Amino acid sequence: MSKTISINAGSSSLKWQLYQMPEETVLAKGLIERIGLKDSISTVKFDDRSEKQVLDIHDHTQAVKILLDDLIRFDIIKSYDEITGVGHRVVAGGEYFKDSALVDDEVLRKVEELSLLAPLHNPANAAGIRAFREICPNITSVVVFDTSFHTTMPEKAYRYPLPTKYYTENKVRKYGAHGTSHQYVAGEAAKLLGKPLEELKLITCHVGNGVSVTAIDKGISVDTSMGFTPLGGVMMGTRTGDLDPAIIAYLMEHTEDFNTPEDISRILNRESGLLGVSESSSDMRDIHTAMHNGDEKAKLAYDIFIDRLQKYIGQYLAVLNGADAIVFTAGIGENAVNVRSSIINGISWFGCKVDPEKNVFGVVGDISTDDSRIKVLVIPTDEELVIARDVERFKNQ
Amino acid sequence: MSKTISINAGSSSLKWQLYQMPEETVLAKGLIERIGLKDSISTVKFDDRSEKQVLDIHDHTQAVKILLDDLIRFDIIKSYDEITGVGHRVVAGGEYFKDSALVDDEVLRKVEELSLLAPLHNPANAAGIRAFREICPNITSVVVFDTSFHTTMPEKAYRYPLPTKYYTENKVRKYGAHGTSHQYVAGEAAKLLGKPLEELKLITCHVGNGVSVTAIDKGISVDTSMGFTPLGGVMMGTRTGDLDPAIIAYLMEHTEDFNTPEDISRILNRESGLLGVSESSSDMRDIHTAMHNGDEKAKLAYDIFIDRLQKYIGQYLAVLNGADAIVFTAGIGENAVNVRSSIINGISWFGCKVDPEKNVFGVVGDISTDDSRIKVLVIPTDEELVIARDVERFKNQ
Repeated sequence: MSKTISINAGSSSLKWQLYQMPEETVLAKGLIERIGLKDSISTVKFDDRSEKQVLDIHDHTQAVKILLDDLIRFDIIKSYDEITGVGHRVVAGGEYFKDSALVDDEVLRKVEELSLLAPLHNPANAAGIRAFREICPNITSVVVFDTSFHTTMPEKAYRYPLPTKYYTENKVRKYGAHGTSHQYVAGEAAKLLGKPLEELKLITCHVGNGVSVTAIDKGISVDTSMGFTPLGGVMMGTRTGDLDPAIIAYLMEHTEDFNTPEDISRILNRESGLLGVSESSSDMRDIHTAMHNGDEKAKLAYDIFIDRLQKYIGQYLAVLNGADAIVFTAGIGENAVNVRSSIINGISWFGCKVDPEKNVFGVVGDISTDDSRIKVLVIPTDEELVIARDVERFKNQ
Repeated sequence: MSKTISINAGSSSLKWQLYQMPEETVLAKGLIERIGLKDSISTVKFDDRSEKQVLDIHDHTQAVKILLDDLIRFDIIKSYDEITGVGHRVVAGGEYFKDSALVDDEVLRKVEELSLLAPLHNPANAAGIRAFREICPNITSVVVFDTSFHTTMPEKAYRYPLPTKYYTENKVRKYGAHGTSHQYVAGEAAKLLGKPLEELKLITCHVGNGVSVTAIDKGISVDTSMGFTPLGGVMMGTRTGDLDPAIIAYLMEHTEDFNTPEDISRILNRESGLLGVSESSSDMRDIHTAMHNGDEKAKLAYDIFIDRLQKYIGQYLAVLNGADAIVFTAGIGENAVNVRSSIINGISWFGCKVDPEKNVFGVVGDISTDDSRIKVLVIPTDEELVIARDVERFKNQ
């Protein structure tokens, strides 16, 4: 019996979840926000309680101390050493990390080196790792990458049709993201379908504020929609997805908005997608309300969003040459009944059909009709659990 | 009985084809190259002859005079006025031209205004139009746009998930290209299938040095792979197709190659695609030979090329919610037996299958097996004929 904590560190935040393993029981979870700013906020949730405190937290090391002390304060643990493992989510694993890894100096150095590929995320992830190394130096510490699950993609999928040197010298290739989520829901889908993962072809749709679609053959990621960065692929809440790249050159020449790489990145990552088209919100719930109130821009944003997801499902049916199931997960995928039915009912020729009696708010499991050739599943994702399980795997090695 | 000439004017070239209409007989065709340079070359082909002359041609007006005089010299026409119509191919028609149009001052002005969207092509197209207006002012003169056929796309297909102002103020949207080709082969496909176009769903693949795929529902283009410019969509001979746009920002920051919009345009349009990945050739015939000689880079280039086309067929099966036929046309589509079988046999789950006995070099027509649920057709394209037919339509109005 042991306790393991999953950590997702951002530049000014630290999200955590404490598990009793191997039972996989969630003992507590929480979020520390505004790290490095005045009036940082630490929230802890356990049993039915939610406790919040506001104080100044200077860095990630202090944040970790506060969260551990909170765990003692609320009697969730008696002492630090009850926690025997920590798993850190890391965004970019590049071509190095084909699996999760035990943290050592070399691994930490590589995580920091890979900041080139995820300048906003990897340095923050590394700060979380350092904080735990300082405070709990003797526990099993594991890094779990968003990209590892996708390192199985064949070269034809991960290479771009650019001059080769931008791959060999600059490492520009498709890495994908949301790997732990796609991996988790694929495993759950196999259980639901009552078949081994090794016999299944799955298209998993992680549809949240970030959106990615993955083609999974026999449990292996063979293609995914996010690209070199999470900007690639389908339209998202505030991101464009893939584009005719001539648009960038054109807007650089003909507007004042695209002067630097930072401008490009900001506009396409934060001001586009549902927000850019609707001109009102990046949140699918708002879009849905607005379109039902007759807002045509919101309706267009919704239609483009559905269109791009349908296209990726069609693509991955080509890549997999068929599929046993399409899986929806994450904020929108788990909750937006209308998004699921719009997508699936528009591509019924493939032999998939949503049963309106099953496709209701809060459903988990199969939402397709009995005669649906491709099953349609709703499976809540659990990236924290994948991280905790990976820590467990390394503890036992 | 009348003669009509189809014109495709480039910045230093003029390609032409003379038809007897309405019989649609080709009387002669030719190409003038190196206009504005020393030692321009004019080639005329008629009957079984090919005549070439080298001389200095200063501009498009002189080029038109020379071609018309050649027609008299070779006894193809007796005088200029036998030619009663001219059709000019124009690359960008923007949102103005939903159909071909009779040339007048206003139309010519708009063609030139649209140079913003096709800076290499529209000015050259306009030069061809001016030349004919000067020399043959009284004939029926028609402009035929590469983009008109695609103006029927729904907004969800042509809009990008960018902030709306880049559409409303900068006209950034999907325009597509190869419209005359897709339109022509769709019509021929309906004849081959023995059904009215209005009852068919077609996926037409124009696979030449430029590549585009179009989803055609009841004869109407509902989506196409080329985008704001012909750089969008699938991988091509020297073009990338769509990309994760963050790649551009990254390469601007981390290499010395991407300093200006011109750099971006040049590298992605001319140095990428089959050429960029194989590092040897942009020509599918060379790629094919090289890969059979064990060249792994050529094999990778081939595999990516096939992969991207398969993905677009899958996409458009989603967009159309099924299809009656997949049509291959243009240089590679008409001639590359292996490309067709690689694409179709890899996506057999959709119910399409190539019959190896029918899929041979030089074939025209159905190459699918009798039990193929989606027919697979090879149809030689004829953009010049579409242009001549459009002139005929305006003559008769």
